[in-house]
Amino acid sequence: MTVWRLKKGADRRIRSGHPWVFTGELAHSAKEVAPGEIVELRTADDHFLAYGYAHPTSQICFRKLSSRSKEKDVLSVDFFQRRLQSAFEHRRAAGWSEFSHRWLFAEADGVPGLVVDSFLTSEQGWIVVVQASTAGMDKVLPNVFSALEELGTQRGGLTVVDAPSSKSRVMEGLKIGEKRVVFGQVRDVYDSDFRFLDDVSLRVDLAHGQKTGFFLDQQWNVHLLKQALKHSFKRPTTPVRILDVCCYVGQWGAHLAAALMSEGKTVEVTTIDTSEAALSFARHNVSRYAGGVEALCGDALEILGTLQPESYDIVVCDPPAFIKKRADLENGLRAYTKLNRDALKLVKPGGIFVGASCSGLVKAEDWRTVLCDASLKSGRVLRHLYLGGHGPDHPVRPEFPEGEYLKCFIARADVPF
Amino acid sequence: MTVWRLKKGADRRIRSGHPWVFTGELAHSAKEVAPGEIVELRTADDHFLAYGYAHPTSQICFRKLSSRSKEKDVLSVDFFQRRLQSAFEHRRAAGWSEFSHRWLFAEADGVPGLVVDSFLTSEQGWIVVVQASTAGMDKVLPNVFSALEELGTQRGGLTVVDAPSSKSRVMEGLKIGEKRVVFGQVRDVYDSDFRFLDDVSLRVDLAHGQKTGFFLDQQWNVHLLKQALKHSFKRPTTPVRILDVCCYVGQWGAHLAAALMSEGKTVEVTTIDTSEAALSFARHNVSRYAGGVEALCGDALEILGTLQPESYDIVVCDPPAFIKKRADLENGLRAYTKLNRDALKLVKPGGIFVGASCSGLVKAEDWRTVLCDASLKSGRVLRHLYLGGHGPDHPVRPEFPEGEYLKCFIARADVPF
Repeated sequence: MTVWRLKKGADRRIRSGHPWVFTGELAHSAKEVAPGEIVELRTADDHFLAYGYAHPTSQICFRKLSSRSKEKDVLSVDFFQRRLQSAFEHRRAAGWSEFSHRWLFAEADGVPGLVVDSFLTSEQGWIVVVQASTAGMDKVLPNVFSALEELGTQRGGLTVVDAPSSKSRVMEGLKIGEKRVVFGQVRDVYDSDFRFLDDVSLRVDLAHGQKTGFFLDQQWNVHLLKQALKHSFKRPTTPVRILDVCCYVGQWGAHLAAALMSEGKTVEVTTIDTSEAALSFARHNVSRYAGGVEALCGDALEILGTLQPESYDIVVCDPPAFIKKRADLENGLRAYTKLNRDALKLVKPGGIFVGASCSGLVKAEDWRTVLCDASLKSGRVLRHLYLGGHGPDHPVRPEFPEGEYLKCFIARADVPF
Repeated sequence: MTVWRLKKGADRRIRSGHPWVFTGELAHSAKEVAPGEIVELRTADDHFLAYGYAHPTSQICFRKLSSRSKEKDVLSVDFFQRRLQSAFEHRRAAGWSEFSHRWLFAEADGVPGLVVDSFLTSEQGWIVVVQASTAGMDKVLPNVFSALEELGTQRGGLTVVDAPSSKSRVMEGLKIGEKRVVFGQVRDVYDSDFRFLDDVSLRVDLAHGQKTGFFLDQQWNVHLLKQALKHSFKRPTTPVRILDVCCYVGQWGAHLAAALMSEGKTVEVTTIDTSEAALSFARHNVSRYAGGVEALCGDALEILGTLQPESYDIVVCDPPAFIKKRADLENGLRAYTKLNRDALKLVKPGGIFVGASCSGLVKAEDWRTVLCDASLKSGRVLRHLYLGGHGPDHPVRPEFPEGEYLKCFIARADVPF
């Protein structure tokens, strides 16, 4: 096994539990290594630190797989079985193993570069979608698949899909490709077939949809907001008006409409997205629960400007990541502020506003500033109902703040005091 | 009304919605004003900014009551009725008006220096405990009481208690005093009589207990953790062992034991507190639900050192605020790290750990560092289950980060990868 050494004093972060090493911290060049090669990391004075996999040109040249010197079988089938099992225990402890969830969340579950989303269907059981975002992970996907096959057998069989769709693959010299079924079978479109945290039927396209096919990360936040909907909008004669900005397949709109419908309320939902394909799913999903659905295709900011101020009871603003690299931070934050400002103007005083960002580079404090500016500029004051964010299937670890990417502020929007 | 002017350019923070002015930002001295006097705040070039109340010697010389120039009746009975009504709407929207909750949370609800906790009893209806922490609020408490009396009549009557117990009163030249009943009546001890978010019977001493008599702020976090307990610890032959560090009246221990008991599990709870009086309440409250209760009186850190490592399934570490002023920050963080480290050592691998801090001066990022160090030093890795914190009755406002004081990380503690 290749051995790498850190510069003197450069071991502080990795000793504190952080899983990354940057090229500047090595006592030597990273260039000699093959992309994804297993490396043993040692201190300047030759003490064992960790096993991990390496990359010769990525800025993060080493990603930790194990801090236990005896765990020499990193990236083997057994290794993946142990990590998947440990991740599964975590979801099971929260009760999340009984419906669709993220089974494995990269660094948080001890496997940098790998995401495994697990969808429970009533017809086919578990369909598992695997995303490798690094060369190290891409190379050993056969071992991941074998581990899944073995664990799947214990759980009554599962279908496995390889989804080489992560954009960060490019930085590692990998191609972005089409999804492919590794074993089992996947239909083009699943209709009303998934089990989610809350009982809602959604039409989902696992084969062609974005990322793993569905955004499981908002399940928790949707669930939080639904707790309030049992008690809000108690005027049965008026329909509750919901605006779902950047709706994708209409997860928020459908869930909220379903929750309100089950309380005997009528609901009208407006959905906005740039993709006609996504909107057609959203229209279908939302119309199951809402009396009226309006699907508007185009740029969210432009469309928001055409809608009637103070005309929605609930506005959900959950756009795709605006900020992919550090250089985009300033412009991205400005764009978030504008979008949230214009979305906030549309909320009736006393209505509910959800402001979410999935840009990992936007920290909690930045997000607070965005919401502060947006509410000021829209003449609203926000009081939170639920401080959303990561659910238990997207675990956060204190020593790895980079893994906490999802902010979600669920609030009531009033006129200022 | 006294008019104050800010220095040129010093209006940025108050314009951004923040409710405080510091003495250095005034164009003149603050000394002329009476403690708690109503003041109109204007910019250097004489534009209206806000109404608020002032203090001649407090570092925060002005606290905003209204940014609307027409709202001239600040601190009147009508004013308090409007603010209490708006705060009530917020709790009602979340469904929190149906059980004990914080009715009004100071700046977050537009009334700096005032806290109103609202306890629902089955025998007596609502008992409302009022805490004024500033001279401005203390002075106008009769108006607060009148507003409560009027609103209470609409809600079937309520009992009001004045609790001059906040330690920040001293900085405003006020005395800390005994609780007194303003109208209605309060018994010494309430037994199994309160309605909380989850159906648990707790013995509480509203008349003599700390703060308003009970820590309502952890209701939400207890509720979050209880969601996981339906699914965890599925080995019915072994009792589930819980450790409640700094337990006060045993809220965490009783709730968690009740949740586990309702799943058919047997539970043993160890409670630790420095107060014998608190421990006797805790013993009573926990023993309703747990097969065994051990109540240990003394310094938490000393006691933790005597307990068996890796012997508890759930450890809750929810101490009182270690940090009351900025000068205590460094020592306080060190004390938090030690306590959490020693508490973490007692969790069985794969068990649950709750790390909470109610020190407002400890920011989210500081808390992350504390948990990071504590888990490293205890040989544990934390993966969150729920990112706790403020429930909807302790609203957070983006423009007032000072109001977000409660951190609560609810996690599983494993051996490191």
